[in-house]
Amino acid sequence: MSKLCASFGVTVRQLREAQGWSQEILAEKAQLNRSYVGEVERGKVIPSLITLDKLASALGLKISDLLAQCERHRGQQAVYKLNLASIAC
Amino acid sequence: MSKLCASFGVTVRQLREAQGWSQEILAEKAQLNRSYVGEVERGKVIPSLITLDKLASALGLKISDLLAQCERHRGQQAVYKLNLASIAC
Repeated sequence: MSKLCASFGVTVRQLREAQGWSQEILAEKAQLNRSYVGEVERGKVIPSLITLDKLASALGLKISDLLAQCERHRGQQAVYKLNLASIAC
Repeated sequence: MSKLCASFGVTVRQLREAQGWSQEILAEKAQLNRSYVGEVERGKVIPSLITLDKLASALGLKISDLLAQCERHRGQQAVYKLNLASIAC
């Protein structure tokens, strides 16, 4: 699965854990299946726009804010890899 | 299909037209099928996170910026309907 889905999954997990919620609680609030939330967090599925909306609403965010956090995570990952590459050179 | 997908479709169409692009041009830039882009614009399909990424990149936007524009369109639609309702009362 894509790096974007992986970053999105990490973002959702971080936001869920920041609330002190289990996957079950987030799934219930988002009206999604618990195992599907687990797959989203592990970047194993490609979420749809409707899923993004449900997760954002459950987390008290706009979809654009949730994606902005995901984009920041992607940016940090890119810098981290660049740093590792510069150490290796 | 959901109002969210309809608003997203209108947003994509407006951004495409602002560039003076045909659906064919946007589809080519986004590496998507032309008829699929048409369905997205008419709100007939639920786009995935990967499709959002492809369309945003083609339009020179972050996914979060594309969705922020979609959310503004949804907000405007809600105000418009409220105004129509107040005229009708």
